[in-house]
Amino acid sequence: MTNYKVTISYDGKPYSGWQKQGNTGNTVQERIESILKSIVNEDVEVFGSGRTDAGTHATGQVANFHMNWLKTPKELMDTINDNLPETIAILNIEEVDNRFHSRLNAKSKIYTYTIWNSDIPPVFARKYSFWVKGKLDIEAMKNASKHLIGQHDFKSFTALKKTKKSTVRTITEIDFKEDGEKIIVTFHGNGFLYQMVRILIGTLIEIGEGTKTEKEIPSILKSKKRENAGFTAPSHGLELTKVFY
Amino acid sequence: MTNYKVTISYDGKPYSGWQKQGNTGNTVQERIESILKSIVNEDVEVFGSGRTDAGTHATGQVANFHMNWLKTPKELMDTINDNLPETIAILNIEEVDNRFHSRLNAKSKIYTYTIWNSDIPPVFARKYSFWVKGKLDIEAMKNASKHLIGQHDFKSFTALKKTKKSTVRTITEIDFKEDGEKIIVTFHGNGFLYQMVRILIGTLIEIGEGTKTEKEIPSILKSKKRENAGFTAPSHGLELTKVFY
Repeated sequence: MTNYKVTISYDGKPYSGWQKQGNTGNTVQERIESILKSIVNEDVEVFGSGRTDAGTHATGQVANFHMNWLKTPKELMDTINDNLPETIAILNIEEVDNRFHSRLNAKSKIYTYTIWNSDIPPVFARKYSFWVKGKLDIEAMKNASKHLIGQHDFKSFTALKKTKKSTVRTITEIDFKEDGEKIIVTFHGNGFLYQMVRILIGTLIEIGEGTKTEKEIPSILKSKKRENAGFTAPSHGLELTKVFY
Repeated sequence: MTNYKVTISYDGKPYSGWQKQGNTGNTVQERIESILKSIVNEDVEVFGSGRTDAGTHATGQVANFHMNWLKTPKELMDTINDNLPETIAILNIEEVDNRFHSRLNAKSKIYTYTIWNSDIPPVFARKYSFWVKGKLDIEAMKNASKHLIGQHDFKSFTALKKTKKSTVRTITEIDFKEDGEKIIVTFHGNGFLYQMVRILIGTLIEIGEGTKTEKEIPSILKSKKRENAGFTAPSHGLELTKVFY
């Protein structure tokens, strides 16, 4: 058995997220597993670096699986790509050490959220960005984001209600890139809680709109109450960009 | 009555092209006309600069219409945009001379065709580019395109079979821009025949793949026979970018 590490791109729109839940068949993981099964005639479990929400995209999801395959990794990648729907593509494949696990060995991740800030609706970007009408105060958003850098308990910024697990995470960088009407916000951190990036973005947008102020961030963090943070920005603006090992 | 000139962006995918044909209701022109009718309670005819094929996109289609409207043009644009589906947007509006006609006064147009040249399918660009596997010889395509510049009878490059009208057109510029796996080809000309850009691109792709050579272009033009040119590239890679007046 060889352990293969793959990098995957997908349009999240048609899927109930990355990870299988029951047997809906409608997750990216299941699409890939069913192709691998048809190739080797046995069950192959695909381990992702983490879940992505329903509707969330990926340009750099990473997964691994153990499989018997006698040809080159490139031929395996081509065979999988030939059978995948046009909404999923394997971008890269490599043989890795048998102990490599895409989730357990992940050191950090980059998520990207795209806001489209314009009066006119973005016809071509509508499925890959969140349209916000009315000029956002990006300087205020940038200043607010500085309070989020570092190790914090992000309990206020997750939709997970009951959890005994730690909600402490470290964000090392939040970067804003403006490109015309597009505002691309990248989050680099050691891990992200359920809906954390979407709630962070929702909160930053409320700051950009002036309904919250940048100074409120420390008290929102301290409160550990979801209702003190902003709204949950929609999943179609979010993309898992890179996983570091 | 005021004559309004509007610039329009649309995703061609859901529509049977720009121009109404019978009463299918499924053209961009009809979508806009039905909104204008609901605003002023009378029929308003919208004149486009030209047809676009079913599935072809636009980032700079131009149209004009005569209408009674007492508020500002900006308010008219916002009202239309509020009522349009997310696949169509008015980008600009201005009051123009009553004699202005978007088709009759058009001097030249730019069409853009996007090819995605890669082994791996383009998940996010799949609806706005034509995926070509196997490395294209772009230098050969550029050289071939030089034979198309100038005034020619483009009868070999149109799907229009019976026409008494002239098939002579002038192309002033064909430009290739490479951006990673993306090849963006722009055509600037005084007018384009039915499916002309798509057949030009199909022919250039065959040259890039080596099944035709750049030297064949003059004889294809001279033959005035559709079957001598290349295949018709799909409409979803094509976009009407700009109309000059």
